[in-house]
Amino acid sequence: MVTKNELKLAKSLHQKKHRIQENSFFVEGEKSIKEFLASSFELKALYSVQLEIFGSIVQGVSITFSDLKTISALTNPSGHFAIFSLPEPQEIAYNDFLVGLDSIRDPGNLGTIIRLCDWFGIRDLVCSKDTVDCFNPKVVQSSMGSLSRVGVHYVDFDSFLAACPVPVLGADMNGVSIYETLLPKQGIWVLGNESTGLSEATQQRLSQTVSIPRFGVTQQTESLNVATATAILLSETRRTFANET
Amino acid sequence: MVTKNELKLAKSLHQKKHRIQENSFFVEGEKSIKEFLASSFELKALYSVQLEIFGSIVQGVSITFSDLKTISALTNPSGHFAIFSLPEPQEIAYNDFLVGLDSIRDPGNLGTIIRLCDWFGIRDLVCSKDTVDCFNPKVVQSSMGSLSRVGVHYVDFDSFLAACPVPVLGADMNGVSIYETLLPKQGIWVLGNESTGLSEATQQRLSQTVSIPRFGVTQQTESLNVATATAILLSETRRTFANET
Repeated sequence: MVTKNELKLAKSLHQKKHRIQENSFFVEGEKSIKEFLASSFELKALYSVQLEIFGSIVQGVSITFSDLKTISALTNPSGHFAIFSLPEPQEIAYNDFLVGLDSIRDPGNLGTIIRLCDWFGIRDLVCSKDTVDCFNPKVVQSSMGSLSRVGVHYVDFDSFLAACPVPVLGADMNGVSIYETLLPKQGIWVLGNESTGLSEATQQRLSQTVSIPRFGVTQQTESLNVATATAILLSETRRTFANET
Repeated sequence: MVTKNELKLAKSLHQKKHRIQENSFFVEGEKSIKEFLASSFELKALYSVQLEIFGSIVQGVSITFSDLKTISALTNPSGHFAIFSLPEPQEIAYNDFLVGLDSIRDPGNLGTIIRLCDWFGIRDLVCSKDTVDCFNPKVVQSSMGSLSRVGVHYVDFDSFLAACPVPVLGADMNGVSIYETLLPKQGIWVLGNESTGLSEATQQRLSQTVSIPRFGVTQQTESLNVATATAILLSETRRTFANET
């Protein structure tokens, strides 16, 4: 059975400073845990109300639902909770498209964007240091296992863009329509903060500014949600080159 | 100042049965309230900690932050709260694309889809009766004013599709790639439940099944979020005909 100290440690991983200190983060839910188990992430501990569903290879610890509730980030805990090591930093690859995020604050948006990167085969997601932490429990939850397959990098965003060897495409209301843009084969899509958009510094680093046209009579919608904008830009990118490979 | 009865009424509008009984729903936040005021929706009452920002034409009632907190659906109330009449049912127009939702349950997803319809100039959004109510406070909140410009209709979905005069296009993993589909000029995009997808009955009504291709090496992502899928389908629809108008 799980000990009090283990519960305390697990609970502490809700906070970024403890995740760094313990070099660990947690994953909830059978499906997400199985996707991390199938990846190169290193398992540190597994707690479950029903350990047998993870097979005999994985060593786990039994836990009761009431103990699980005290450490879960969910209103309705799933019954399974695993702790993994934070990954080693990886090299960023520039032979395809990347996505860059400038101060994204909403965990649900980051989770959805990680899921989109996974869907569209984007290997690297580069984030400004003030973007919400991808190992935040809510991000892990909403990325639904995709975080095990997408490399997320936190960098000094301005220096990164300054040295970026591929075209930097910024998504902004005032850009050229994506439908009329000749996309490069390699590049990085940069999306900005939910309220304030791309920062001044980032705007200075753009090779091109691209917009998603608005239709309809009234044209009063202020902006698209950053995750839905990412969906459209990645779909257009893949569509453009879909018949060439 | 606001009375106890007014607070009680406002609070009751969190629930659908009271919204129907009172023929009313509520909107929070300066921006959203202003968008509803600028639309054809009929204002019943306005409460604000700072009434002057709504100008002199609108009659409002002063409220304190502590009273507002008791009726708000938000963790951080915005300071403004308005009650509007539910709209009269409108005719559905078939001269353009529509969106149909089959059992969408998440308020945030519905709100995002309403915002997308507004962005892409989709006039009518047709929902199965078990889709979350569009006047649910969380939907109103996440639609960010777009609900004032998109007609949302709750119908017997199967009868509606059976009689639908335009092609019914279903979004499903097993369809033909959207990038290789010749889209009609009029039609309805139908999207299914977050977990179970399109119902059996709805699948029987489809003229065509269309998918958003998955890229990348592992191809393990299970599905796209329903709102991001809607974003991609609507973008593709508008792109296809963008140069013809």
